[in-house]
Amino acid sequence: MDIVPAPTSARHAKAVGQRRGLVIVHTGPGKGKSTAAFGLALRAHGRGLPVQIYQFMKVPTARFGEHRAFEALGLPIIGLGDGFSWKSRDLTHSAELARSGWERAEATVRAGEHALVVLDEITYPLRYGWVPLQPVLACLRERPAHVHVVLTGRDAPQELIDAADTVTHMGAVKHHYDAGVPAQRGIED
Amino acid sequence: MDIVPAPTSARHAKAVGQRRGLVIVHTGPGKGKSTAAFGLALRAHGRGLPVQIYQFMKVPTARFGEHRAFEALGLPIIGLGDGFSWKSRDLTHSAELARSGWERAEATVRAGEHALVVLDEITYPLRYGWVPLQPVLACLRERPAHVHVVLTGRDAPQELIDAADTVTHMGAVKHHYDAGVPAQRGIED
Repeated sequence: MDIVPAPTSARHAKAVGQRRGLVIVHTGPGKGKSTAAFGLALRAHGRGLPVQIYQFMKVPTARFGEHRAFEALGLPIIGLGDGFSWKSRDLTHSAELARSGWERAEATVRAGEHALVVLDEITYPLRYGWVPLQPVLACLRERPAHVHVVLTGRDAPQELIDAADTVTHMGAVKHHYDAGVPAQRGIED
Repeated sequence: MDIVPAPTSARHAKAVGQRRGLVIVHTGPGKGKSTAAFGLALRAHGRGLPVQIYQFMKVPTARFGEHRAFEALGLPIIGLGDGFSWKSRDLTHSAELARSGWERAEATVRAGEHALVVLDEITYPLRYGWVPLQPVLACLRERPAHVHVVLTGRDAPQELIDAADTVTHMGAVKHHYDAGVPAQRGIED
C-alpha cells in the first residue's frame, strides 16, 4: 500500500473519477460468481472489447458449456489448473501450476492489450497459499488504467476487497443440493 | 399453493429427487443478477440446450453488449418492456406491455420447448403490480419438469423465494458508483 504508482496507473485514474478500468470481485458461498463473470465477459465481447478469461481451478481441456459457447464466439477460456483443489494428491504440482498460471495472467493484465481480464476462481490458490496475495494486489494497483479485472471465488481476502472498486457477495439463500437435487447438466457445467 | 399439479409437473419431479428443471432466483441490491443469468444461458447454450431469454425492463431494440454477443450465437434476447420503470410517464402503457410480455414468457415456459428460460428483471413488474404474482407462481409449479427458469431482479417476493430451488442474494459490499466512478461501457451495458 506504500507503493507510489506511475501517473498512468489505475490508481491515478481513480483519483480523477474518469471512465477507467474497474476491479470487480464476486465472492461469497452462493451460486453466480463465475457465471456473472462470464456474463460480463460476454457483454464486453459484444461491445467489441478484447477479453481474456483465465480459470485457475479448471484444466486446459475443460469442455463445459461456457467453454463451448465462448469458443464459438472466438474467445476461448484458458484453464490454468489441474482440476484439483487442496485435496489434490500432488499439492506441489498444483502449487507450481497455480504460480505459473498467475505469471501468465499477470502478464496479460499488465500488458493492457485486453480491456477485460477474468481471473476465475483465483481466490482458491490465494487461500491455499499457492499464489501470494501481495503480487496480485501490486499487479492490480499498477495495471494500465483502462483494464477491467474480474476476480471470483469464495472467501476473497479482505485486502482484495479493499482494493476492489465493486464487490458483490453472492449469498446462498437456498440451494437445490440441500433438497437432494443433483447437479444439472448445462446449468452447473 | 393448494393446486394439485399433474404427475408430469416440476413439483412431482421434485418429490422423486431426479434430474429436473430448477427454479433459480438472483435477487438483492448487488451487481451480477442479470450477468449471472446470461452466464447460465451461455453455459446451457454451449451444451446444446435450447434457451430463451426475456428481459422485462428492456426495449426490443436494446443493443447492449449482451444483445450483440447472444445474437452472434444465434440466441437473440427478447426485450418485453419499454425501457421505463415506475417513473414512466405512461404507466398504463408500461403495465399493459408487462402483462402481454408475461403472457408471451408464460407460453414459452409452459410449452417446454426450451430447456432454460430466463426472465430477466421480472421482479420489477411484479413489484409495480403490473404482473400479478399468483399466475407466475402457478406457471412455475405447473411447468414441464425439465424446464429450468431463472428469474432476476431486486426485492424478489418471499413467495417466489419459497417456490425456488436455488436463490442467490447478490449483496453490494461496495460499488464504484459510490466512489464517483461513472458507468463503464462494455461492463454495464
